[in-house]
Amino acid sequence: MNEKKLVMIGCGTVGQGLLEIIEDKTPNIKLIAISDKLKGSLLDPKGIDIPYMLGILDNDGKVDDYDKASDKAITGLDAIETIKKSNGDIMAEMTYTDIETGEPATSHIKAALKQGMHVTTSNKGPAALYYTKLQKLASDNGVKLFIEGTVMSGTPIFNLARECFAGSKITEVSGILNGTTNYILSKMENEGWDYKDALKKAQELGYAEADPTADVEGHDALAKVVILSNCILGGNIKPEDVPCEGINNITLEDVNEAAENGMRYKLLGSTKIEEDKITASVKPVKLELSNPLAGVGGATNALTFKTDLLGEVTIQGPGAGKIETGYSIFVDIMSILNHE
Amino acid sequence: MNEKKLVMIGCGTVGQGLLEIIEDKTPNIKLIAISDKLKGSLLDPKGIDIPYMLGILDNDGKVDDYDKASDKAITGLDAIETIKKSNGDIMAEMTYTDIETGEPATSHIKAALKQGMHVTTSNKGPAALYYTKLQKLASDNGVKLFIEGTVMSGTPIFNLARECFAGSKITEVSGILNGTTNYILSKMENEGWDYKDALKKAQELGYAEADPTADVEGHDALAKVVILSNCILGGNIKPEDVPCEGINNITLEDVNEAAENGMRYKLLGSTKIEEDKITASVKPVKLELSNPLAGVGGATNALTFKTDLLGEVTIQGPGAGKIETGYSIFVDIMSILNHE
Repeated sequence: MNEKKLVMIGCGTVGQGLLEIIEDKTPNIKLIAISDKLKGSLLDPKGIDIPYMLGILDNDGKVDDYDKASDKAITGLDAIETIKKSNGDIMAEMTYTDIETGEPATSHIKAALKQGMHVTTSNKGPAALYYTKLQKLASDNGVKLFIEGTVMSGTPIFNLARECFAGSKITEVSGILNGTTNYILSKMENEGWDYKDALKKAQELGYAEADPTADVEGHDALAKVVILSNCILGGNIKPEDVPCEGINNITLEDVNEAAENGMRYKLLGSTKIEEDKITASVKPVKLELSNPLAGVGGATNALTFKTDLLGEVTIQGPGAGKIETGYSIFVDIMSILNHE
Repeated sequence: MNEKKLVMIGCGTVGQGLLEIIEDKTPNIKLIAISDKLKGSLLDPKGIDIPYMLGILDNDGKVDDYDKASDKAITGLDAIETIKKSNGDIMAEMTYTDIETGEPATSHIKAALKQGMHVTTSNKGPAALYYTKLQKLASDNGVKLFIEGTVMSGTPIFNLARECFAGSKITEVSGILNGTTNYILSKMENEGWDYKDALKKAQELGYAEADPTADVEGHDALAKVVILSNCILGGNIKPEDVPCEGINNITLEDVNEAAENGMRYKLLGSTKIEEDKITASVKPVKLELSNPLAGVGGATNALTFKTDLLGEVTIQGPGAGKIETGYSIFVDIMSILNHE
């Protein structure tokens, strides 16, 4: 099998996690390009020295600072130019998510697919807004579009559905898709903190952003529910089709009352398909403690698949992290390498 | 892609579950042979009419009773003859497990691999006793040997490890691998039944055999731990290498005392690899309630994978059942079809 040429668009936390994994695992790929809006850009068909580049980036240096490029190297290209000139085999899209427009990631993915490159992305924007169209473009160009990192970081969701439930019909998926809100609810129940204190602690620990709206109002989980609906259930819905309620109105009294009745609040993202119609929602739900999702504490994520042949199967694992999300890109690359 | 020719060896509950799934899902395969020690044998290169055969078997008829065979059909062959004369592409081994000898399943699998056929099996005997040798034979013949049905029926374990953790190192697997003992322990804790009453109920429900030794003394879980050690961790251990303790000495007092301390007894099968050395065991373990395996109740199974890149990932699902185990064979067939 020939060495595959990898192009990285975006080289923040996820990209650096990916570089560390490639360095550790030495798969049969050659990194030929990195383009990052803040850190600069390098296209070197002869290959980029990964440990050397990691040394630069780890010391807050830039891609531009790399001084071991070959005489074939080009610097200063933007992302689209990098993709078009790269002659690469696989493009990894790891720029920051813009959930309103899906840009610039969607344009990067389109450009790569049109060039006949396989694509893997951890970016929720294109996956939530344009999955169906992008998948068709991939198919028309005879390449693969994988999105493992968009939901539950590297915990397998899409690879699981594609490879492990092959030939089985998935009728519903429902789960804990946002670690921040799960952490807050766990702390309210276990420590008796009120919502504001639990949120403050989540912010101190770096789970929640200074503006926690996307997490606590459910918008992050909403984007993931749309992705699951379209990618796993074969729907074609938009974010505005999904009723969304966060945990910001859940009080300590609600949590305690549920606990007294042997129940536990979880923010669930759910989607099901019946007669070709998708019904999806994000909302706080009181679960019986015997529900596999009820036991999922802290910042962990979990998802239950309902299938026609296996009944319910639940997978629980990390939902975030530099290496965990870097691995989501890596496992998609491995799938491309292993099944060509 | 050409239609693949399927040979079924063993046509009991699992085999009939598989036939129902094939009938429902119409994958690109042609069933050309069934050989069952009790129900007779048919090899028809022109293909066997599955709904018609299912109609016969559902009415307690035999494979021999099929009266729509073509003029090319041969009846009365034993399993090995069927495999050798079949010119099939995939052999599904679904005879009853003999965990002492692994026979006759091991001979069936060897014969098929030597004929250049892919093999999938739900039979724990060959997988527990001869996995390493059989996998080498498969590799030497350029074909695949898959064993999804040997642990947790169709809940993905081996497909998960192969496809979804590709490129990641799995260092430990630990789980609830026997539904009968988990049911008994759940009933002792939840209903306050003593061990004997819980066992009796499990027997009434058909979870436990009249002779429950294999379940309650841990031998069933032991076979699965050996399979996980050799197939997933790359070990080469034997059943006698694994210390094995069942639940037959666990009293209601033990269970209650654990519960008072916020703990729960589970029969855990565990195996880990450190510096190329496998350490495995089957024994009752008191788990903290926050452990993902502690919440697994009734006859459900679950397994936690420890990996270098993702940390811990737990999967929970059915561990038995006609359709569920039939699906384990089906998903292996789908993997062979999808990745040729």
